[in-house]
Amino acid sequence: MKLWEKGTALNEAIESFTVGNDHLLDQALLEYDCQASIAHARMLGKMAVLTPEEVHALCDELQRIVVLDGKGKFVIRREQEDCHTAIENHLTEKLGAISEKIHTARSRNDQVLTALRLYYKDRIADCREAVNSFVEALKLFGQKHGDIIFPGYSHTRKAMPTTFEIWSGAFVDSMHDNLTLLATVLKLLDQCPLGTAAGYGVPMKLHREFTANELGFSRVQNNPIYAQHSRGKFEATLLHALSQITLDLNRVASDLIFMSLPELAFVTLPEEICTGSSIMPHKQNPDVLELVRAKHHEVVACEHQIQATVANLISGYHRDFQLSKGPAMRGIEVTLTCLNIMALVVTKLGVNKQACKMALTDEVYATEQVYELVRKGVPFRQAYKQVADKLRRRG
Amino acid sequence: MKLWEKGTALNEAIESFTVGNDHLLDQALLEYDCQASIAHARMLGKMAVLTPEEVHALCDELQRIVVLDGKGKFVIRREQEDCHTAIENHLTEKLGAISEKIHTARSRNDQVLTALRLYYKDRIADCREAVNSFVEALKLFGQKHGDIIFPGYSHTRKAMPTTFEIWSGAFVDSMHDNLTLLATVLKLLDQCPLGTAAGYGVPMKLHREFTANELGFSRVQNNPIYAQHSRGKFEATLLHALSQITLDLNRVASDLIFMSLPELAFVTLPEEICTGSSIMPHKQNPDVLELVRAKHHEVVACEHQIQATVANLISGYHRDFQLSKGPAMRGIEVTLTCLNIMALVVTKLGVNKQACKMALTDEVYATEQVYELVRKGVPFRQAYKQVADKLRRRG
Amino acid sequence: MKLWEKGTALNEAIESFTVGNDHLLDQALLEYDCQASIAHARMLGKMAVLTPEEVHALCDELQRIVVLDGKGKFVIRREQEDCHTAIENHLTEKLGAISEKIHTARSRNDQVLTALRLYYKDRIADCREAVNSFVEALKLFGQKHGDIIFPGYSHTRKAMPTTFEIWSGAFVDSMHDNLTLLATVLKLLDQCPLGTAAGYGVPMKLHREFTANELGFSRVQNNPIYAQHSRGKFEATLLHALSQITLDLNRVASDLIFMSLPELAFVTLPEEICTGSSIMPHKQNPDVLELVRAKHHEVVACEHQIQATVANLISGYHRDFQLSKGPAMRGIEVTLTCLNIMALVVTKLGVNKQACKMALTDEVYATEQVYELVRKGVPFRQAYKQVADKLRRRG
Amino acid sequence: MKLWEKGTALNEAIESFTVGNDHLLDQALLEYDCQASIAHARMLGKMAVLTPEEVHALCDELQRIVVLDGKGKFVIRREQEDCHTAIENHLTEKLGAISEKIHTARSRNDQVLTALRLYYKDRIADCREAVNSFVEALKLFGQKHGDIIFPGYSHTRKAMPTTFEIWSGAFVDSMHDNLTLLATVLKLLDQCPLGTAAGYGVPMKLHREFTANELGFSRVQNNPIYAQHSRGKFEATLLHALSQITLDLNRVASDLIFMSLPELAFVTLPEEICTGSSIMPHKQNPDVLELVRAKHHEVVACEHQIQATVANLISGYHRDFQLSKGPAMRGIEVTLTCLNIMALVVTKLGVNKQACKMALTDEVYATEQVYELVRKGVPFRQAYKQVADKLRRRG
Repeated sequence: MKLWEKGTALNEAIESFTVGNDHLLDQALLEYDCQASIAHARMLGKMAVLTPEEVHALCDELQRIVVLDGKGKFVIRREQEDCHTAIENHLTEKLGAISEKIHTARSRNDQVLTALRLYYKDRIADCREAVNSFVEALKLFGQKHGDIIFPGYSHTRKAMPTTFEIWSGAFVDSMHDNLTLLATVLKLLDQCPLGTAAGYGVPMKLHREFTANELGFSRVQNNPIYAQHSRGKFEATLLHALSQITLDLNRVASDLIFMSLPELAFVTLPEEICTGSSIMPHKQNPDVLELVRAKHHEVVACEHQIQATVANLISGYHRDFQLSKGPAMRGIEVTLTCLNIMALVVTKLGVNKQACKMALTDEVYATEQVYELVRKGVPFRQAYKQVADKLRRRG
Repeated sequence: MKLWEKGTALNEAIESFTVGNDHLLDQALLEYDCQASIAHARMLGKMAVLTPEEVHALCDELQRIVVLDGKGKFVIRREQEDCHTAIENHLTEKLGAISEKIHTARSRNDQVLTALRLYYKDRIADCREAVNSFVEALKLFGQKHGDIIFPGYSHTRKAMPTTFEIWSGAFVDSMHDNLTLLATVLKLLDQCPLGTAAGYGVPMKLHREFTANELGFSRVQNNPIYAQHSRGKFEATLLHALSQITLDLNRVASDLIFMSLPELAFVTLPEEICTGSSIMPHKQNPDVLELVRAKHHEVVACEHQIQATVANLISGYHRDFQLSKGPAMRGIEVTLTCLNIMALVVTKLGVNKQACKMALTDEVYATEQVYELVRKGVPFRQAYKQVADKLRRRG
Repeated sequence: MKLWEKGTALNEAIESFTVGNDHLLDQALLEYDCQASIAHARMLGKMAVLTPEEVHALCDELQRIVVLDGKGKFVIRREQEDCHTAIENHLTEKLGAISEKIHTARSRNDQVLTALRLYYKDRIADCREAVNSFVEALKLFGQKHGDIIFPGYSHTRKAMPTTFEIWSGAFVDSMHDNLTLLATVLKLLDQCPLGTAAGYGVPMKLHREFTANELGFSRVQNNPIYAQHSRGKFEATLLHALSQITLDLNRVASDLIFMSLPELAFVTLPEEICTGSSIMPHKQNPDVLELVRAKHHEVVACEHQIQATVANLISGYHRDFQLSKGPAMRGIEVTLTCLNIMALVVTKLGVNKQACKMALTDEVYATEQVYELVRKGVPFRQAYKQVADKLRRRG
Repeated sequence: MKLWEKGTALNEAIESFTVGNDHLLDQALLEYDCQASIAHARMLGKMAVLTPEEVHALCDELQRIVVLDGKGKFVIRREQEDCHTAIENHLTEKLGAISEKIHTARSRNDQVLTALRLYYKDRIADCREAVNSFVEALKLFGQKHGDIIFPGYSHTRKAMPTTFEIWSGAFVDSMHDNLTLLATVLKLLDQCPLGTAAGYGVPMKLHREFTANELGFSRVQNNPIYAQHSRGKFEATLLHALSQITLDLNRVASDLIFMSLPELAFVTLPEEICTGSSIMPHKQNPDVLELVRAKHHEVVACEHQIQATVANLISGYHRDFQLSKGPAMRGIEVTLTCLNIMALVVTKLGVNKQACKMALTDEVYATEQVYELVRKGVPFRQAYKQVADKLRRRG
């Protein structure tokens, strides 16, 4: 039974359409919704809406749901629509009348906001960890192969010498900046919307600091209209931060596809991370890198979808917002997977010292020749022209 | 066993990553891949690569797979990676050595291109049908309520009188134009890529006209590099055409949300297609319309993802292309669902004649007043000013 | 003076904001707006709203504006807001009272729709011509270098032999399909919106077939709500068609950047189409190709901007629609420029026969070896494994 | 003369294409490039590449350029390609041989990166100021009308009572969070790339801390490959932050269009910020709000364009990056303009107290009725059902 059902049957096709895959996505939110409900029950206890016994019974049962869920034994059914309903239904079944009070002073709108933020906070922690593992892999690679010199490219043409330490270090530094951005996303998300109800609060004085504190939020999101407005808005920024991570991976993947090109062979991809062709027996294909490259665009598309979904709408909740949940979750999963895979790839990556050396042909040192002249006192622009003329006569 | 396996184990994490959800998505392609394989086997028969008996055995077994799949009894396993491998494995198991010849003169690249096109062609037919049903619903609505006058809006302000016939007719006409665009997409897709192999053909003379004909394609896509280049390119155009359909639905949904606003109440949404609130007992919410509005952005995001995925790449197949399959299939499913739901909504839609009449306040007829003066011989610009002055003095 | 001014001053900042750069963009629409006004005046003549003398005077003056504009002597001023106002102001100045009748039976909404469609139709003709020139350049290149064999790549790795005829032919075929799509866009645009006024028609019987015919439209867009709905909708499809063209150019540019890589050197870019570096005297950079590659994303972004702008809105004109004009015009200009530049690049493009030959190393022929065995009767899958084993032992 | 010219003429069409509108955009970068050149010259002085006199002469002349530019008297010509060339040409003309040394230890790649970051830092300061002005306007509005109650909407239907203090406060809070995000963008940008040259440094020991310090950067961006990689990457994040600002404005505009709907009339837009219709004399249209709503999508499109442009590319500079400059600058301008306009709109905004009161119909208080029962001890879910039943019987 749905939380808002009043007796009229909903058209079956309509019902199936409105539920969509919420019951599946919400499985990931279940534990967070239970956490939030526990904090909420405690607050209702402090407000004397619930007796201490009721609080105890509810919290106990909510903990039990978390445990069941951990064992895969609490499955949200399609007809339950979402995790909020599944939980309330369960509480009603187990505790009867007590459960009828748990929804006091909240709406599903602030419930899902709260559960999502707790979920995002955990996932951001996962992302930070995955970024750090990737950075570790880059650093190890740098320690192992860092001093090998190879030609850096610009405009997809040999430019000047560089080293694998600089190359891998570029992504170490970039990932550090990504973590700065991610920390800001966390800061934005780290405000508790519980108690803002359906965007217009509840006609009751709530202890919002209490629940915020219980749930580990650093502050309360006071304004209920802003709480609704931040749905989608925060998700877009979260996905943008993730897209900055996957952009780096896209670049690393593009580099490795290029640098492992047999014609260059600066790096080697071990066979165990390559795939073959069904028609060409000689192929060792960097599918894994290509997929990482491509998956960046999935994360970006998730950002775009959310951005477009929440625009051109007036204030207040719209069901449209619900459709930000799927892409947000997907974007996170894709980012985590790609980080883990690329950490593995970098760990397995080899360097072909000989090929690097062979590739350091004369023109890679053209700029060094200019600076040799500069060091001898020739003004830069003249030195540039002298070397250019020399190359031109030769080339 | 994968088609390209040569003995070295692929790293497990890498394997799981590269397969992704292909084994799930490919279930929808299975019957099309069988169709294409049957045509291909017949062609190999004509080329004497296969004996008539071998052709017969292969075609028989492929038909059997289609039947099994129809009963849900041919499930692609993750370790099989995709439908092509699942089929070849099955053939090997059932027919032994004969199956080793079926992959002659093709690659998985042209196989998947072919299966996808057959799949798209069928789905486009489904979309066309769903568009027609939606158009029927609009027409019935127009017949029932068409002559009721209500205020048309511009800039979200009352503008001039219009009728429900004109309103619903707008989307009938727009859908017809959408079908024109969809027909063009079909025309683009209606060229057979089978035989282009991995983008560079096969060193054998093939009867490509024969397979194209067998599979109901109106022409052969001769150029193998173009066959690969069209991966993602055609999908983007398909999704664009679908996004034009869902844009119309987005507009209809926006209109209905607005026109069913109790303050206007031009139209009525029966309770059976509305949902409620968990906190506000009075709410009748148009969630279904909001979801349709929002799902348009999912289709658009699918288009964008594909556009971004296939750009900045050189010619020839890249595994990145594989990631166009998911969004393409998703975009189609979303479009079909939204069309069906909106046909239902329009069928259930009521009109509040009284509210429409009440809303036809004086200013809605300001332009008519201008034209009354015009009909009496007052130049338009003067008539406009006279009415504007009158309204200004009054307002 | 603006067409809707009634005496109250508009805030200056607001005015400047609302006008934006419309007065600049509209310069390109001026001649089309005059054409449409001439047709409209003739229709008003047929309806006896205007006398034959008035029609004559108005048409004469409108022709004069076209001539002045052609000489750069009819410049829309910011305070005139748009081409419609500039024209009506001019007519008032020259013809006095007669001009007060020209706006009968139309609104600026259908005026701009009409002018834009005439403009788009001409620009599509330009695009078609530019596509054909590019195709000519490809064909000439194919005639000159077509039979040279070089290694085709898949997964950015050498795959199998191909020829420049096949390579350039891929884009010839793709451009033909682009023209099919463009023809469909033209078909969609080829309906006359003049007379739909502000989305709700005018309270007068109009000879809409007459103006449609005068202006060379093949049909009338009857439904006035659809006429407004198609603003942005048609532009999005136009831009999508253009993005398919620029996607091809993006691919050609990516190919040429790769194939002119000195390590491969399959093709040569003459110095006159390369640029240099301010620090590295040896560099010959393919900036022009990189810009073409990048400009594709500008066209795609124009499409996306329009798609997002017109969604989540109710029926009827919104000023938001005005912001589809800029990206549409920009997308067209970028496409035309890129087509012209790439035609030039392809014309200047050289092929390094020797480098191509050298690159045809053994593994490029691995598939041919498989087929040699196939021709001897070895089943494909066995042949594949034999060659793979041989390569493995060797490699 | 271009910095890299060596005597061969560039094809004219190619030249015009590659320059594009850089000479126009770069006018805004001129002063920043001069600042950076002054710091660079001083560093070259410390390194004894330049004599104190040369440093003095160069800095003097660079200051002069800034002054000339401030008066509109230093105009970059198309044939100069960009600001860097225009400046070096000017220095050569005025100082002769000395100017030939200024390009020592840098490339145009790090020059433009540096100039852009200085430019962005200033523009971000402008944005912060404009956000603060908008917030001030919201606060003043809140002080004036804050305690007026009106019906808050959810699902575009009346939900529960709210106040204008809460409504305007929502955007105050949201803008504060936007400033947090903007501060992070500033932090990312606040690292000095000068000295990273073309992505691979220069073969000379530089005092990079010195120039960073001179230019007010808080740190050096050490890694030269990362310096190039951050081109476009940082711009995307900057534009994302701006899109969060314009999303708020989009929401405010959507709210005001809705709440000023004559049927609701909660707020009033003074005539001086409205525009009229050329056909309907009664119209007062909220064009300014519609344009603000629409311009959000322009900012988002700028973000998307940059995201797509820099993906799928290998490390090192590509000319593609240049095309991130235009959208970045445009996105900033649009954001600033919209903030300023909306501050004005909010300042001029009126509230219709009477209309708000009238709109507070019974059902807006349905939730309050539930809570009255809750306060009397009725469990929430029962109270909800009682009120729902009452409404159902009545409605």
